[in-house]
Amino acid sequence: MTRILEVTDLILRDAHQSLMATRMAMEDMVPACEDLDNAGFWSLECWGGATFDSCIRFLNEDPWERLKTFRKLLPKTKLQMLLRGQNLLGYRHYEDTVVERFVAKAAEHGMDVFRVFDALNDIRNLQTSIKAVKKSGKHAQGTICYTVSPLHTVEAFVDMAQRLKEMGCDSICIKDMAALLKPQPAYDLVKGIKEKCGKDTLVHLHCHSTTGVTLVSYMKAIEAGCDIVDTAISSLSLGPGHNPTESLVEMLEGTGIETRLDMARLLKARNYFKTIRPRYKEFLSDITGVETEIFQSQIPGGMISNMESQLKQQGAGDKLQEVLLEVPRVRKVSGFPPLVTPSSQIVGTQAVFNVLMGPYKVLTGEFADLMLGYYGETIGPKDPEVMEKARVHAKKEAITCRPAELLKPEWEHLRADALSAKANGTDEDVLTFAMFPQVAPKFFATRDQGPKNLGKDPAATPAAAAAPAAATPTKPTGPQKYAVTINGQVHNVTVAAAR
Amino acid sequence: MTRILEVTDLILRDAHQSLMATRMAMEDMVPACEDLDNAGFWSLECWGGATFDSCIRFLNEDPWERLKTFRKLLPKTKLQMLLRGQNLLGYRHYEDTVVERFVAKAAEHGMDVFRVFDALNDIRNLQTSIKAVKKSGKHAQGTICYTVSPLHTVEAFVDMAQRLKEMGCDSICIKDMAALLKPQPAYDLVKGIKEKCGKDTLVHLHCHSTTGVTLVSYMKAIEAGCDIVDTAISSLSLGPGHNPTESLVEMLEGTGIETRLDMARLLKARNYFKTIRPRYKEFLSDITGVETEIFQSQIPGGMISNMESQLKQQGAGDKLQEVLLEVPRVRKVSGFPPLVTPSSQIVGTQAVFNVLMGPYKVLTGEFADLMLGYYGETIGPKDPEVMEKARVHAKKEAITCRPAELLKPEWEHLRADALSAKANGTDEDVLTFAMFPQVAPKFFATRDQGPKNLGKDPAATPAAAAAPAAATPTKPTGPQKYAVTINGQVHNVTVAAAR
Repeated sequence: MTRILEVTDLILRDAHQSLMATRMAMEDMVPACEDLDNAGFWSLECWGGATFDSCIRFLNEDPWERLKTFRKLLPKTKLQMLLRGQNLLGYRHYEDTVVERFVAKAAEHGMDVFRVFDALNDIRNLQTSIKAVKKSGKHAQGTICYTVSPLHTVEAFVDMAQRLKEMGCDSICIKDMAALLKPQPAYDLVKGIKEKCGKDTLVHLHCHSTTGVTLVSYMKAIEAGCDIVDTAISSLSLGPGHNPTESLVEMLEGTGIETRLDMARLLKARNYFKTIRPRYKEFLSDITGVETEIFQSQIPGGMISNMESQLKQQGAGDKLQEVLLEVPRVRKVSGFPPLVTPSSQIVGTQAVFNVLMGPYKVLTGEFADLMLGYYGETIGPKDPEVMEKARVHAKKEAITCRPAELLKPEWEHLRADALSAKANGTDEDVLTFAMFPQVAPKFFATRDQGPKNLGKDPAATPAAAAAPAAATPTKPTGPQKYAVTINGQVHNVTVAAAR
Repeated sequence: MTRILEVTDLILRDAHQSLMATRMAMEDMVPACEDLDNAGFWSLECWGGATFDSCIRFLNEDPWERLKTFRKLLPKTKLQMLLRGQNLLGYRHYEDTVVERFVAKAAEHGMDVFRVFDALNDIRNLQTSIKAVKKSGKHAQGTICYTVSPLHTVEAFVDMAQRLKEMGCDSICIKDMAALLKPQPAYDLVKGIKEKCGKDTLVHLHCHSTTGVTLVSYMKAIEAGCDIVDTAISSLSLGPGHNPTESLVEMLEGTGIETRLDMARLLKARNYFKTIRPRYKEFLSDITGVETEIFQSQIPGGMISNMESQLKQQGAGDKLQEVLLEVPRVRKVSGFPPLVTPSSQIVGTQAVFNVLMGPYKVLTGEFADLMLGYYGETIGPKDPEVMEKARVHAKKEAITCRPAELLKPEWEHLRADALSAKANGTDEDVLTFAMFPQVAPKFFATRDQGPKNLGKDPAATPAAAAAPAAATPTKPTGPQKYAVTINGQVHNVTVAAAR
């Protein structure tokens, strides 16, 4: 009897986020929707992650309108989004009411599957959003951020899956954002989850392809019973992106396992995005091969290039190797957080500062918060000396409760601020403002000019055009605030000397 | 107990043949040799295939000197070459003495492992070279060209492996030049060979990466007991090339199987070739992603782009789809030959002519020879009507014997011709002349100017520079001879109207 493997395609969200800095214009996605909707995917990831930010920051496009458009153009397929738990799509913790309202609005506009993760794998940071998704009658997917450390054993991840299941999650996602999941651990992890949580527990695997091994990991995970995998139409796949959808389909021939995908539809979408890709040449990742050094450094590729650019602007481009060695030490000091937005930026920036100014001579505000528990719990204990420095620096005590418990109701306040920033009075606009208070006012002011398409006729683009360099901190001399742009997202970093 | 998987690296031959039209200069390979020699490879493929042709045609380099240099620079590692059986490195059948002398000379200069294949999988075309390799005391690797057709079952390939073993081959290579070998057939094939030929039979797997599935095929083949696999250092891997060596090493973690490779050496070689690759920008394949349509058309990527260029020059660029559909029909008519040099060119050119001028209205001389058995036997029967056309066209009868049986001794004749073309009197020069009689005289005349390096400082190369277009036949009006350049190799095609 043939077993069916379900597939989620990422072309409308993570594929262009990973390969072309989230810049693809909605009008360049619309023509592919009919083929994608009829191809037989379990779901299409099309919203969340960095798309919300990119819409209002770069594309002058209302992200809520994008969602409504996808709902209309993809009537047959479940829509899926990536949600950063209590951070929603922003970079701080929101009070529970804001989280609930965000989820309710996304569900109202047609979102079906909410993939919810926390950068520290602290599941207390997922509970409000998971509960809100369940209340909306939608699919709540609890997420394990896969990482490698002495504490991140198969058993530890399986336990986490069990706790997510007990929390009411409809499925478990293993999210391998750095392509660190090798075939044997993939097999062991899926098998472990199926054994502990029951074989009917839906397991959904998301790997990037950066290291070149993860299509093999898919094969072994599928052999262990994995139910759904994430891929991207091949013309927008590989490198720091994902494994190609068509290759996955072909790979299974003769195994007794097949997808429900229609190859003719896939090839039509492939040919279409092949024509779109060169239009975004100036944003395209220049990595097309594999990067296996990640296995040694455990540092995602995008993070390395950002640290390199930070160092160069400090005239310290020769320190990259030192910083690469420092990152695992900072991870250990901070209890081995996975490296994913925003923990990757927090750990990476602190490693740069440690190398430039001496270990923990200067702490970023965010790193102090991480040490003091304001982002949640990490799997390992934190270094007590550095915690003490963080306490002095941040002038506040460590906490052990769920961070959002400490937040005061903020909806009315956000609504008032949004309205004075020319929001249109809808809850959607308040949520947009809440997530990007610096960017939203400008967007509200220019919204009626309509979306911009940053794609260009490749014949008209100069070959040497590079992606705009990331903004980086100037030489730190005392407490300062910086806006650090990382993978197109602005991250606010506060720096002060530690005593 | 840990099992060891052995690895052959292709960076010095097939990697640059597949990705940069075999143009890499010897001086660009020399600096990597120490790391490659100490990395722990089973062998390094560094000679044969198209390198001999490329050396004398483009690089003004003596291929025999290249071999001697590699032997000096790679003292610890077995050298490996690809040999086209009775065709040696040329495009016709040679009389047995020529084959014996070629093998003896290559062995004398340090070649260790001879991978011998025949484009039709007719093992009678391997017997002289295999015997010569054994006589030299070297490693004879018998090769199965993997292809897909109704007749190419696992059982048929396993039988072929058994016959190769009986012929005295030291190992069996499965050569998957078009990346058609999927994981389950890879498993079944290796398992079948181990069961039928004995578990001590060395099985060596060579896959290209064009379709994106073959690293998974490696995993399954290894699980079935495959002993050696072919990969390429990652900075010259993927696309129409091969799977990355570093990814293979990492992929095995936790499986109880490991390689003997030193990752630090691999990464040094990786970084080195990363700096070399952009120097050959004008020759670089523009395919960096995957091409899964090959599974439908069974036509290797390089063959498609060549047919496209032939059609365009005939003003028939819109006929490509028709030609793609015609290729499988030509394969059926001619007994399902695998598509590899030179059968890929013969079948492809005939398909173009069938579409342009009607089915078998015009036959190439080579296609007629293929139909009449002058290249050897195919797995399937041939179409009798087209065979009759071939007989009339070529004015000769079909044969069933080993084609080289019909050849008269030719060594003295070749020696005399080589000497009048200014060969230096060595057997090596006679062999060079024998393989490329049109090109060798010019090479002999300019040899003392020394090798050319076609690599260029990437900053000085105009971005839009394209690879030189392949020469293609002009409009056929009667019997004509054409020199068709395919993947940088000149192939002589004779065309006459069939009656």
